[in-house]
Amino acid sequence: MIRVAVVGAAGFIGGELLRLLIGHPEVEVTAAVSSRFAGKRVDGVHPNLRSATDLLFCSVDDVDEYDAVFLATPHGAAMTQIDRWIGHTKQVIDLTGDFRLDDTEVFQRYYGTRHAAPHLLGEFVPGIPELHRERLRGADLISVPGCMAVAGVLSLHPIRDLIGPDVRLDARTGSSGSGATAGEGNLHAFRSGAMRVFAPTAHRHEAEIARHVGVRVTMTATGVEAVRGVQTICHVTPKPGVDGKEVRRAYRERYRDEPFVRLVAQQRGLYRYPEPKILSGSNFCDVGFAFDEDTGRLTTIAALDNLVKGGAGNAVQCLNIRMGWPETLGLSFPGLHPA
Amino acid sequence: MIRVAVVGAAGFIGGELLRLLIGHPEVEVTAAVSSRFAGKRVDGVHPNLRSATDLLFCSVDDVDEYDAVFLATPHGAAMTQIDRWIGHTKQVIDLTGDFRLDDTEVFQRYYGTRHAAPHLLGEFVPGIPELHRERLRGADLISVPGCMAVAGVLSLHPIRDLIGPDVRLDARTGSSGSGATAGEGNLHAFRSGAMRVFAPTAHRHEAEIARHVGVRVTMTATGVEAVRGVQTICHVTPKPGVDGKEVRRAYRERYRDEPFVRLVAQQRGLYRYPEPKILSGSNFCDVGFAFDEDTGRLTTIAALDNLVKGGAGNAVQCLNIRMGWPETLGLSFPGLHPA
Amino acid sequence: MIRVAVVGAAGFIGGELLRLLIGHPEVEVTAAVSSRFAGKRVDGVHPNLRSATDLLFCSVDDVDEYDAVFLATPHGAAMTQIDRWIGHTKQVIDLTGDFRLDDTEVFQRYYGTRHAAPHLLGEFVPGIPELHRERLRGADLISVPGCMAVAGVLSLHPIRDLIGPDVRLDARTGSSGSGATAGEGNLHAFRSGAMRVFAPTAHRHEAEIARHVGVRVTMTATGVEAVRGVQTICHVTPKPGVDGKEVRRAYRERYRDEPFVRLVAQQRGLYRYPEPKILSGSNFCDVGFAFDEDTGRLTTIAALDNLVKGGAGNAVQCLNIRMGWPETLGLSFPGLHPA
Amino acid sequence: MIRVAVVGAAGFIGGELLRLLIGHPEVEVTAAVSSRFAGKRVDGVHPNLRSATDLLFCSVDDVDEYDAVFLATPHGAAMTQIDRWIGHTKQVIDLTGDFRLDDTEVFQRYYGTRHAAPHLLGEFVPGIPELHRERLRGADLISVPGCMAVAGVLSLHPIRDLIGPDVRLDARTGSSGSGATAGEGNLHAFRSGAMRVFAPTAHRHEAEIARHVGVRVTMTATGVEAVRGVQTICHVTPKPGVDGKEVRRAYRERYRDEPFVRLVAQQRGLYRYPEPKILSGSNFCDVGFAFDEDTGRLTTIAALDNLVKGGAGNAVQCLNIRMGWPETLGLSFPGLHPA
Repeated sequence: MIRVAVVGAAGFIGGELLRLLIGHPEVEVTAAVSSRFAGKRVDGVHPNLRSATDLLFCSVDDVDEYDAVFLATPHGAAMTQIDRWIGHTKQVIDLTGDFRLDDTEVFQRYYGTRHAAPHLLGEFVPGIPELHRERLRGADLISVPGCMAVAGVLSLHPIRDLIGPDVRLDARTGSSGSGATAGEGNLHAFRSGAMRVFAPTAHRHEAEIARHVGVRVTMTATGVEAVRGVQTICHVTPKPGVDGKEVRRAYRERYRDEPFVRLVAQQRGLYRYPEPKILSGSNFCDVGFAFDEDTGRLTTIAALDNLVKGGAGNAVQCLNIRMGWPETLGLSFPGLHPA
Repeated sequence: MIRVAVVGAAGFIGGELLRLLIGHPEVEVTAAVSSRFAGKRVDGVHPNLRSATDLLFCSVDDVDEYDAVFLATPHGAAMTQIDRWIGHTKQVIDLTGDFRLDDTEVFQRYYGTRHAAPHLLGEFVPGIPELHRERLRGADLISVPGCMAVAGVLSLHPIRDLIGPDVRLDARTGSSGSGATAGEGNLHAFRSGAMRVFAPTAHRHEAEIARHVGVRVTMTATGVEAVRGVQTICHVTPKPGVDGKEVRRAYRERYRDEPFVRLVAQQRGLYRYPEPKILSGSNFCDVGFAFDEDTGRLTTIAALDNLVKGGAGNAVQCLNIRMGWPETLGLSFPGLHPA
Repeated sequence: MIRVAVVGAAGFIGGELLRLLIGHPEVEVTAAVSSRFAGKRVDGVHPNLRSATDLLFCSVDDVDEYDAVFLATPHGAAMTQIDRWIGHTKQVIDLTGDFRLDDTEVFQRYYGTRHAAPHLLGEFVPGIPELHRERLRGADLISVPGCMAVAGVLSLHPIRDLIGPDVRLDARTGSSGSGATAGEGNLHAFRSGAMRVFAPTAHRHEAEIARHVGVRVTMTATGVEAVRGVQTICHVTPKPGVDGKEVRRAYRERYRDEPFVRLVAQQRGLYRYPEPKILSGSNFCDVGFAFDEDTGRLTTIAALDNLVKGGAGNAVQCLNIRMGWPETLGLSFPGLHPA
Repeated sequence: MIRVAVVGAAGFIGGELLRLLIGHPEVEVTAAVSSRFAGKRVDGVHPNLRSATDLLFCSVDDVDEYDAVFLATPHGAAMTQIDRWIGHTKQVIDLTGDFRLDDTEVFQRYYGTRHAAPHLLGEFVPGIPELHRERLRGADLISVPGCMAVAGVLSLHPIRDLIGPDVRLDARTGSSGSGATAGEGNLHAFRSGAMRVFAPTAHRHEAEIARHVGVRVTMTATGVEAVRGVQTICHVTPKPGVDGKEVRRAYRERYRDEPFVRLVAQQRGLYRYPEPKILSGSNFCDVGFAFDEDTGRLTTIAALDNLVKGGAGNAVQCLNIRMGWPETLGLSFPGLHPA
């Protein structure tokens, strides 16, 4: 049993971390940090945890004993307070955007601010088990990537040598991606049933995909009706001579042994391409593709739950790897159908 | 052509008034009052009005010439500022809760505050054409009832002599009923797909129904997934000897000539009971019922668009009556199916 | 490890049984019976089970070895084929409506057909752990109640001595309750965002509630926008002298030690009354109430996932009790928030 | 007043034609043809038309007097029965896919069948007022384009000289696009909240866009949660030297006088890009774009109601042009907000 603290525990990612960590057999949650809710019951904010925990939120100064800390604070807070955490724990798993890029210039372009701890940018191991499993085993600092970035990376990385360098990525996301703070943008009457193009170009996650896959990505992000769920569509151009079989083989070989990536390759049926709807609560990222032999164009599709494989679940998977535990520990929920 | 001002024009009811009044052949909208948005384009807030109007919002002090004013402000603002309006216009149509009850004590119980203009309570004619058409023809002060109250009143009034005095009313409502101000309560991630019992007892609208129908009403209100739409289910006990035919006849006779109340009385089909979904944007209130001959229990059902027949449309219908225009003028949109 | 067969495994309840039983540490699923899909992969119909199982559907004649059978067939099929199952297994858990009532006359009134095995009606123990835990320990024949019946029973049973004999029950349900067979009634364009009163009176589940609670129930059922989820609102009249504290005490004492019933009794917050939205996939039934001291009326509210506590999860809980296993085995998923 | 017949009147496009034509001041609907519902009331199938019409559906043989016919039958029926209609009326407006392409080979590739009336392919004027207004004034045969094609064409045509020849088009659509016939694909439990990639490549509408704009289009179509609404995202590459201003000017000049195309070009706000949600029931197509000066990539966005500007409304607009009536006659509904 290790003791963990969750900072930013009242948010959506924080709540999902609590759900997974409270149900994790090797973990004890010793602190759920929320300055706003300090002293209040955790299940008052996260009602799905009623009868699962009697924990109270605490303030950051009340955290004393823990072996690992998960940072689920707003972007910017992690990099300014990182010294506090590094000095007091063996293990920092950051779920903010602060340490996802390794280039200060790119960071500044996408986040619009200077990085507050540039010397640490290279120290964080990207929390992508499928790409960095070995490095994660010894990592004390882990940076979990953005939700749409995970989907994009996992759908492009296996085929990066088979395609041209330009990728047009179309991402759709549910409303939980914009967080638990109420505002006009996530007012139900406006957001319900929407197809809201909120980032036609230059979404932050495109920089992560470019970093990890080594392609040029132009990304459009649209909010559609869903609470959870991200889907990415990548429009790519295969290299001459590449056919559908080769693409399939590349995915299959790459993900055969991955516990949380599934190649969806049915010939027919409503679910023959990745669909976020059936992944809510699960840690799977489903990937698939369509190869148009006539036009020689390739479309790849990926889906995941933005709060799980796109956040808290991925973080727990990283912890499992880091600790040498079975990688699926505490992450066995398969998702619901219908849902 | 008369000139009208809409106060509280940036809200949901205000926007719906603008949609209807801009499309109304006898009306010119001379002022759309919003302190928050004064100087901004109306279609910036209400994007459905793009290309329909170039109007700018103005502040309350900019309103000079108008023949009628619609008050769609937050509850409480109308009664404190009523003198300003009465002195400057022939016609006040109030869509707030301020003048819906005629008893200061009942008002205080339901609104939790003292009435600021008790002397005017009796002066406002209730904006229910089906009950008060004659009085409305000469009314300078009109108070449009609450959305759920309209549904409840129209489904109970025709049969009030056929039923016992106790009514249990179950109301369901879309999210637009809680207004355009963002808050935790209407955050999409929480409100989407909800069945939220927000008023298990003592909803304000029950007092209006009691007033107009002369029954004791105990009301439960639940927010369900929809942006627009209200449905009321009334559980009533018919008097001895009353049967289904008599109930049907009472509705039929009462609403035969009403332009905006339809008795829905099909034997089968998905739409054999009133369904708000097909009423969005329309001024209809559909009413229906089921009589269980075995148990002698009667259930009445009503549906409407809370922003139209439950608000702005009802107000325009009252204006039409007051001005002697055809009652359906500007209110001809029939609703969509499917939708 | 026991071996179990699921009959009707391609339906929604069947799929949910498979999800729970495949994840259950003491159970091996040896047969997933579906005449329509025999020979096809289970995860082709239930895509959430991809990578969880390689099972194929089989026809009913292929089932040979099993210790328990779950019947999730259409209503009517269980009672006509019951002999086949009783002769070949120790344990029958029926999730259809066939053995939910113990009175052939009441059965005929609500199901519109004669009972095919009336001699067995009294043999089935109702699958309601909260009422019949002791009997379930030795039960070879178990009949799991209807989804809305579970919610109604659990919200009324603890207070049945505190209330008058007449209950008006308002039930709302998601679309999965109408099953996996496509028809006009569950066409997305018609069902989406609906408030469809599909049973204004005489829903079958009211007979079950009456049986188990000993009250007269008049029930109205409405389909609202959700895939999973049932909520019941009971309008009841407390006996003279009964107050809110007594009601609360009755619930608290009754459910203090129940693993899957939670009394929701917060003073404030969006989730202060039971909300199905946060229960998807979980086996909880949340119950709550509001007591209007002014009018002396009592409203009780209950919520659950119709496919879990209202079906498959309840069935697994019964199996756990029958086998002497921990009652929560395989049922630990707490539900998601937000969702 | 002209007399019109609607064939395929029980479908979604047929119903929308009826709604618009019944409300049209210059049109009398003399026949609503549906073989399945012949003899039944129109408002039994289209409940939004209650109190708007007493029309009964008729069979095709009952149609005798009419000046114009609208064909809203399943694809394939129009081309095989076209002689019947041409011989008996002055005006045929076809809303099926049968006469949308002018090349039999392309037709066969996309529709998988031989064309039954190839000699007429060149006779039909495309029902796109913005491209073919003059030809429509004298057109006796009009073919209304596919819903996603309209959006794609209107967002690409004004800038076709400013961009490279390759377009990646990402289309999202509501469930009404798949029609009124129930099937597994539009079962609510599966379709609700979905992000279903149903055509990753080679959707039929891409051929229409290619035809009208003169570009190569590779299209991906996804069903998202909505009943009505289509949105297209086009990823295009501007020619060297083209900047955002030039793009804006091209749209502005082109659509300045169009009654039903709006350039949405706000700097901020939730609705700064085209959003189908606010267009339900209206005949507008909103277009917009984002030009990423850093990467030199251009993204265009268009939105419309698939049943109106993407079908019935567009057809009525064509009729208005053909008859010399004001182009907006019967098409004035502006859409709702919020909705």
